[in-house]
Parts: sequence; structure tokens; C-alpha cells
Amino acid sequence: MRWFRAAHDASAKDANRSSSPIGAERDPKRLVTFSDAVIAIAVTLLVLEIQPPEDTEHLLRGLAELWPSYVAYAITFLLIGQMWVNHHVMFDHIRSADRMLLLLNTLLLMVIAFLPFASSLLAHAFESGHGKRTALIFYGATYVVAAILFNVIWEYARHGRRLLTSATDNDTARAISRRFRPAPFWIVVGTALGALHPVVGLVVVIAFIPFYWLPIKGEVGSIQRTREQSRGDT
Amino acid sequence: MRWFRAAHDASAKDANRSSSPIGAERDPKRLVTFSDAVIAIAVTLLVLEIQPPEDTEHLLRGLAELWPSYVAYAITFLLIGQMWVNHHVMFDHIRSADRMLLLLNTLLLMVIAFLPFASSLLAHAFESGHGKRTALIFYGATYVVAAILFNVIWEYARHGRRLLTSATDNDTARAISRRFRPAPFWIVVGTALGALHPVVGLVVVIAFIPFYWLPIKGEVGSIQRTREQSRGDT
Amino acid sequence: MRWFRAAHDASAKDANRSSSPIGAERDPKRLVTFSDAVIAIAVTLLVLEIQPPEDTEHLLRGLAELWPSYVAYAITFLLIGQMWVNHHVMFDHIRSADRMLLLLNTLLLMVIAFLPFASSLLAHAFESGHGKRTALIFYGATYVVAAILFNVIWEYARHGRRLLTSATDNDTARAISRRFRPAPFWIVVGTALGALHPVVGLVVVIAFIPFYWLPIKGEVGSIQRTREQSRGDT
Amino acid sequence: MRWFRAAHDASAKDANRSSSPIGAERDPKRLVTFSDAVIAIAVTLLVLEIQPPEDTEHLLRGLAELWPSYVAYAITFLLIGQMWVNHHVMFDHIRSADRMLLLLNTLLLMVIAFLPFASSLLAHAFESGHGKRTALIFYGATYVVAAILFNVIWEYARHGRRLLTSATDNDTARAISRRFRPAPFWIVVGTALGALHPVVGLVVVIAFIPFYWLPIKGEVGSIQRTREQSRGDT
Repeated sequence: MRWFRAAHDASAKDANRSSSPIGAERDPKRLVTFSDAVIAIAVTLLVLEIQPPEDTEHLLRGLAELWPSYVAYAITFLLIGQMWVNHHVMFDHIRSADRMLLLLNTLLLMVIAFLPFASSLLAHAFESGHGKRTALIFYGATYVVAAILFNVIWEYARHGRRLLTSATDNDTARAISRRFRPAPFWIVVGTALGALHPVVGLVVVIAFIPFYWLPIKGEVGSIQRTREQSRGDT
Repeated sequence: MRWFRAAHDASAKDANRSSSPIGAERDPKRLVTFSDAVIAIAVTLLVLEIQPPEDTEHLLRGLAELWPSYVAYAITFLLIGQMWVNHHVMFDHIRSADRMLLLLNTLLLMVIAFLPFASSLLAHAFESGHGKRTALIFYGATYVVAAILFNVIWEYARHGRRLLTSATDNDTARAISRRFRPAPFWIVVGTALGALHPVVGLVVVIAFIPFYWLPIKGEVGSIQRTREQSRGDT
Repeated sequence: MRWFRAAHDASAKDANRSSSPIGAERDPKRLVTFSDAVIAIAVTLLVLEIQPPEDTEHLLRGLAELWPSYVAYAITFLLIGQMWVNHHVMFDHIRSADRMLLLLNTLLLMVIAFLPFASSLLAHAFESGHGKRTALIFYGATYVVAAILFNVIWEYARHGRRLLTSATDNDTARAISRRFRPAPFWIVVGTALGALHPVVGLVVVIAFIPFYWLPIKGEVGSIQRTREQSRGDT
Repeated sequence: MRWFRAAHDASAKDANRSSSPIGAERDPKRLVTFSDAVIAIAVTLLVLEIQPPEDTEHLLRGLAELWPSYVAYAITFLLIGQMWVNHHVMFDHIRSADRMLLLLNTLLLMVIAFLPFASSLLAHAFESGHGKRTALIFYGATYVVAAILFNVIWEYARHGRRLLTSATDNDTARAISRRFRPAPFWIVVGTALGALHPVVGLVVVIAFIPFYWLPIKGEVGSIQRTREQSRGDT
């Protein structure tokens, strides 16, 4: 068991070394690229969950009956697209990634990559007419976890300016927090309403989409910031 | 409901701030990379829609009967490949992405990622002999929406030179508009003909491929532009 | 039909303009990235073609009977991996992409993305014991088309040094041609032998893998070239 | 058979040329991007292996019975995420890729891309109650091969500093070796225990996750290294 002990010692000593301000931090560029890839794949896999009608003799009717699949496809595509935008907003202000951030981000990706399953469940429940409440709560719960992880990642990076870029002022950091914080509550409310009446719950979740596509108040865009910096430099 | 109000206020104030010429604009590079990923995945998922023949004892006959799947695969692959090229042509001339452009582009990707479903529907209709008209109209309608979104995105970026690069002259911008504008009409005609006779409609849609693979008249390629600029700089 | 004529005129005039040495050429970097994405997805989708045994009570036996799926997975993965390497070798020496190259490359990607289907067909034929010859010829034919397209792309770029980088000397260009030329013949031979005896044909195709993983004689690696250039510059 | 001989000669002469210290080496950036793509796809395809319950009338119960699928999804996602992190750790210190490294890395990707199959097998075994031992050994064996390949790649690159960056000191190289070496043994132990009692084996494999998410002792992060280098340069 020598290797085991050696490995254990190694990580124990690592903990002591973690007083170093840099430690095993690395450029978040790769993390962002990897996250983009997972999000792009998750969003494109959604289409595989739509099952073509088996009765090809009445194709028009069969296609019409698939409306819950189209709705679930569109909602989930837009919600994941939104997460993609907000993921970039967040990582525009993060200068480096430590192991904890890598782990938290992997958990977030795990939840996002799970959404095609939740989405197909929702569609099939509305198609069959059974289990709508269950499916909506399952779908909503998945989003709540994703929304919580967004908040956890951002607050972890922001706490004591642990991982923020030097160009990120505190107002911007606060504006992003303000933007991310309502999300879990909003979806919890939508999910709870969905437990009473699925369609009402769905409408509340859908209402979430336009709100989160709006720009973030007080957040200075990356281009503007860069321009101002370069002006400051000259 | 404090968070709700705070969030609402935030976005309301955002609207007022939008008079700023820059706002939450950002470099479109990530948007292009993300779009490339979605397009690459959509195109590669097409193969999953081809179902191998169940009767393995007469594999040759089974494979021959799949010809509509191969045709649908090839047509859709080339059409999406075409969209990929034209997406780059367009974004070569867009200097930054605001939230509206992000939203429009997400809608476009949503439609492109839906094409494998429409393509498999088309293939199965021609294989079973049922629902050819319905499947062709469904397929054509999906393309029409994509073609309209291409035009909307470009005109949005071009309007008052809102998001164009400074290197993009008005002739080039007009040449791209001229290229994109016929697409929805072309496919509407193909789809309408397909409602009368599916094979004729399909042929019109296929005829669309060679036309759109041609270079755009009057559009100056990005390499040439760069060379001329660098010459100008010296 | 005004738009139709306008569009037609546009492309007709384009043809006249094509005397320009640059035309609509663009940086091949995006083409390479897009190709990498399609190849990465095709290779990773291979696993979806392996169907888990239905009889879970005798899982070990069921897993053992899947051996043709594992073999097809490994062969196809290595062959596509090989294509990825050779695609890079080729595009290291291509300075820009015109529309024809874009089209040829899209055709190549279309064939590569089709391989998971051909591979699954091959595996199921050996599993069921039916249609081995047909499946092997189908599989081989797909590769032959890919190998021919590799040659067509390279000769198109090389012809009169049409699209080669200035750093590519004629020896290197010839070495790459020599490398690509045998591939279609080799696989045609393997496929023809497979028509007589499937296992022999498969062995010939597999023998192709180690040969094509070897470095290309006379080709100067991109790193070495860069070093020499930078030496030359100083 | 002229082409055959020519090709054979070519590779034979290549072998003689391999005394050159550079040969066909190339920048590993593309290899890393390609690997990232394959890993991102493999991880996102995991969700397709979760089959929604067929009995939609008792959806809640059906979803609850899928717990092994959720567990397999989470474990495999975290293990592949871990591999992604360690793949970067490794390639941060590799300056160039020769053909052997390309081949070894392709083999590693082949094993990683196979994991969704092994994961779905594991989930279905626990769901059906049959074949748990077989499935766990199959799953564990796949990981052992991946862990061995990690070691082989690193030792190949490290041997005589064959492919290491000049910035990589021997302590860092050794620290990475120490980190990678226990992995195959750990998973062999977990798999062996799983052959006796599946749940115990699974717990040992899961215990592997937190250990490998820790930073590597003695390894200097890429950011820190870069900073020190740039300090040294001035």
C-alpha cells in the first residue's frame, strides 16, 4: 500500500501548500471552451428526444400531436442558450480557475447535460397525458439545481475577490450577483405552481426566458471595458 | 418578492441605458465558435437517423431500400454545410454581438438543430410511401424559417451599420443582402411545388444547393480585405 | 422572378471575376476547426452503435457475443483518427480555402460522418452471421470514397500550387501525394478480397492502420518548418 | 504494386530519418483541442443512455426506479471530468506531439469514448438486478485501461525528457508521475472487490473521485510558471 500512502501524503501536503495565492490555478480559457462544447452538444442532442410518429399513414395528425415535444424543445433550447450567455458573463470576470471552481463547474455541466432527459420526460408526459405534475417538478428541480450552482460558482469566485479579474469593479460583481440570485426562487415558484397546475407552472418557467435574455444592469460589457482600459493605457 | 422587484427594476433601467452605443455588446468570436459547434453536431447527428435494415438475411435489398435515407442525408448535410459557410460570410462583417443578435442567433441555431428530425421524417416518408407531401412541406417549412432568420440577422446588423465592422463597405453589405434575400422565396416555391408533386419540390430544393455554394458577387473575401488593409497601413 | 434573375446574374458575373487570384478565398483555420469538430463527433458517436445485450441474465455471454461490435468500434476509431491526422498534415500546407475546397471538404466530412452507420452495419452482420460480404463491401466502399476525396482535395490544392502555403516546398507536396495515392487502391483490394472472404478483407483493411499512422517521408513537420523560417528571418 | 513498394520504402526511410530530434513532431494544441472535443461529447452522450420509464401512468415510481442510471451518470461524468483535468495537467508539460504520442492519445480517447457504453451497462445491471458483478468488472476494466494509458503517455513523454517543455522541471514531472501511478491499482482493487460484492467495489471506485480532484503536490500551475518565466525574462 506504499503508493496509497504516498498519494495520500501528497494531497495532505498540498493542503498545506494551498496558502500560496496561486497554487494550482490555471487560465479559465480551456474551462470555458470545454463548457461551451458540453452546452452546444446538450442543446443539439435535444432533437434526438423527439420521436417521429409511428403511424406514417396519418403523418399530419401524428406531427400535430407532437406539439409538446416542439414546445419542450424550444423552451429547453432557449433556457440552455440563456445559461450559455450567462456562463460567459460570469467567466468574463473570472481570472483563473482553481480545483474547486473546476469541480463546481463540472457539477453545473453535469446538470445542464441532464436537461435533454428532463425535457423529453416533460414532452412525453404532456403527449401521453399521464404524469404531467411529476414530469414538471422533475424538470423544474433540474433547473433549480443549475440555478443554485450558478450562484454558488459566482459567489465562490467573488468572495474576497478570490478569482475576479482586476478589471472587474465591485459594482459589476454585485450586478451579476443581483442577476443570478432570483433565478432559483423564480423556478421554485414555477415548479411549485406546476405541482398544482402543470400549465400554469410551465408558463411561469417560460416567463423566465425573456427576463434572463435582457442585458445585466450595471454590468460593463467586455468590449467596452477593454476599450476603456486601452484608453487608460495610452 | 423583493428579489423580483429588484430584478425587474434592473432590467427596466437597462432599457434606459441602452442609449449607450456600446451597452452589453461583446466580441462575436464566441458566438461564432458556439454556432460552429452546434452546426457541426447537427450535421453529424444526421447519420443517427438512418436506421439499419432489420432483415439482415437480405441485407443488400434492405440497404438498397434505404435510398431515401441516403438522399436525405446528403441533401441535408450539404444544405447545413451551406448555412455554415454563409454564417461565416455574415459574421466576418459583424463587429460585435448585442443581446438581440444573441437571441436571433440562438433562434437560428434552434432551427438548424431541428433539421435532423425534419430530414429523418422526409426519409421515412419516402421509404414507407406515406405522407410524402406532409413530410416535404414540414422539411421545407423548417428551411424557410432558417432562411428568414438569416435575413433578419443580417438586416438587423446592417441597419444603420449597427453592428458592421468598419472594414465592411456598403457594397459588400448590399451584396450579402442580395445573396440572402432570394433564399426564403426559393424554398417556399420548392415547398409549394412539393405539395403538388413531392419529387418536383425536392428537385427545386436540391437545385438550391449549387447556387448557394457559389461565391458572393461583390463580396470581398476576408483575406483580400486584410491584405489591402495591411497594405494601406504601411 | 426578379430576385431569381438578380441572383443568377450575380453568380454569372462571379464566374468572370474569378480571374482574380484571390476571389472569395478565406483563411482555412475555421474549416479545420469545423472539420475537427465533425470528426470528433463522428468518432464519439461510434459507441452509440453498440447495443447492450438484451438478455441481462447471461450478461457475460451477451457481452462476449458483442465482439464484432468492439472490433468494428476499434477499427473505425483508429481509421477515423488516422484521417484526422492526415487531414491536419494536408491543411498544414494549405494557405487558404476557396469555395471549391469548401465544397470538397464538406463532401469528405459527409463521408466521414457516415462511417458510424457503415461500422454498425459491419458489426451487426458479423453478430448475426448474415450479410457479412455485403456489409464489408459497403464499409469498404465508404472508405474508398473518403480516400479518393483526400486525393482530390490535395491535388486540387497542389495543382499549380493553387492553394499551397509559400513555406511548402515541392518535395513536401509530392511526399504527401505519394502518401495519399495508395489509400484508395489498398482499400479497393481489401474490399474485393472481402467480397471473396470477409475476414481476409477485414484483415487487409486493418493492415492499413499501422501503415498510415507512420510519419510521412520527406514531409517537414510544421514545428521544424516554423523554426527554420524564424531562423531564416533573423 | 508500384505504389505499395513506394509507400513501403517511404516509411522504411522514415525510420532512418527518425534520428532527427524533431521529425514529424507538431504542436500539441490541436491534439488537446481534439481530445477536449471527444471528452466533452462522451460526457454529454451519457444522458442518452438513461431510458425514460415506459409506464407513464406511474411516472414517479418509474423515475425512482431509475436511481442506478442517475448514480452511473454522476459517477461517470465526474470520472471523465477528472480525466479531462488530468489530461490538461499532462499536456501543459508536453511541448510537441510525435506520431507515437498521437497514436497513444487516440487509444486513450477510444477508451474514454467507450465509457458511456460501460456506464449504461452498469446502470441497467443494477436496475434489472442481473449481472451486477459482470457489469462492474466490465466498467472497472475500462477504467483500468484508461488509467494505464494515462501512465504510458506520460512516461513516454517524460522518458529522457523526450517531449517535455523546457519550463517543466524534473520535480514537477515526478509529481505528475506520482499522481498517475496509483490510479490503475486503485481501480483494480475496486474492481476486484466488486467481483466479490458489487456495492463495495462501486464505493471504492467512487472514493477515487475526491482524491483525484485534489491539486497535484509539487506541480507548479501553468499560470504561476508563466508568471515566473516572464519575470525571469525581464
